[in-house]
Amino acid sequence: MLMVEIGLPYELILVDRKANAQKSESYLKLNPTGRIPVLVDNERVIHESAAIGLHLCEKHPQSCLIPELGSSERASFFQWLFYLTSSLQSELMVYFYPQRHTENVNEVAAIKSAQEDRITEMFALIDSALEGKDFLVGNRVSMCDFFLFMLSHWGSDLPRPPLSFLHLGQYLKAMAKRPSVVQASALEGTNLDIYR
Amino acid sequence: MLMVEIGLPYELILVDRKANAQKSESYLKLNPTGRIPVLVDNERVIHESAAIGLHLCEKHPQSCLIPELGSSERASFFQWLFYLTSSLQSELMVYFYPQRHTENVNEVAAIKSAQEDRITEMFALIDSALEGKDFLVGNRVSMCDFFLFMLSHWGSDLPRPPLSFLHLGQYLKAMAKRPSVVQASALEGTNLDIYR
Repeated sequence: MLMVEIGLPYELILVDRKANAQKSESYLKLNPTGRIPVLVDNERVIHESAAIGLHLCEKHPQSCLIPELGSSERASFFQWLFYLTSSLQSELMVYFYPQRHTENVNEVAAIKSAQEDRITEMFALIDSALEGKDFLVGNRVSMCDFFLFMLSHWGSDLPRPPLSFLHLGQYLKAMAKRPSVVQASALEGTNLDIYR
Repeated sequence: MLMVEIGLPYELILVDRKANAQKSESYLKLNPTGRIPVLVDNERVIHESAAIGLHLCEKHPQSCLIPELGSSERASFFQWLFYLTSSLQSELMVYFYPQRHTENVNEVAAIKSAQEDRITEMFALIDSALEGKDFLVGNRVSMCDFFLFMLSHWGSDLPRPPLSFLHLGQYLKAMAKRPSVVQASALEGTNLDIYR
């Protein structure tokens, strides 16, 4: 989404997760954590999706996707970015892959259920923060909005989906109309019908 | 540690976790996530420890704790910072508070045990990255080093503690000698004897 929004040329190379290709020797050379994604930008290789996003946005400041150094929105931008990555995203990962976090496979349902409550609380907090606002940080789109849209979409099948929250729901519907979101979703095969 | 390293004046106000003071009305006004810490910098209120750190380091560029915009270390800095916060720190949190992530309190041991393996793997990866290096990013201290020192210290009681890794152990011993680390640890009552 960020590369389309900024207008960058790219080549998308899918990693075959079912074949565990992210743990292959050649992938681990690019990203020793064995996680998806990784960005190869000429001689530079970067993993961690938020770091990739910051790299792209900083390299193309004309996109204005990060509030300027010294601006009043700058700290708020990083605050939300870390909240999204280290709280919301990591809690979602435990929800989606509970079996990785216990040695007792019979207990994954108890983990999933606890995670549902934690994640719902987080989306509720974000919903409050979006009251009367079009974007998460200040009054213009930032990298955080694309991150939040992605994580919210991941949570579509939660008992209380992000779209069901008042402010967050309106926000997601508006984000889903952005040309870059539409184009990137088409490319990845992500169906945006629920936001119509 | 960062405030001492930069040489900033501050007032440390401890939050009484045993009394759940981080969920009190007055604390939630500062930080709606109900988590510790929060920074009040004049009219600016910032939560998320990594965002607080970035704010302090950016506001005081003479401290050189973040690689400069456009430098080759910049992307690596953010990559490690997100790895530390969204991977290592969030896995440590599940390890320390497994009861929050399951509805079956009898199963916390199975979660703790799985987390031990995951966290050990992460410290092993960091250990490899530190081979032949004094600092995590480039060849000078950065904000990432203080973050890594903190998280490593949190993990001191793991079956395979960070200090037991070859490169990481040497690195931690050197970090523990930094005047800012010594001074901040004394202030917080953190005993650094294990690094001697």
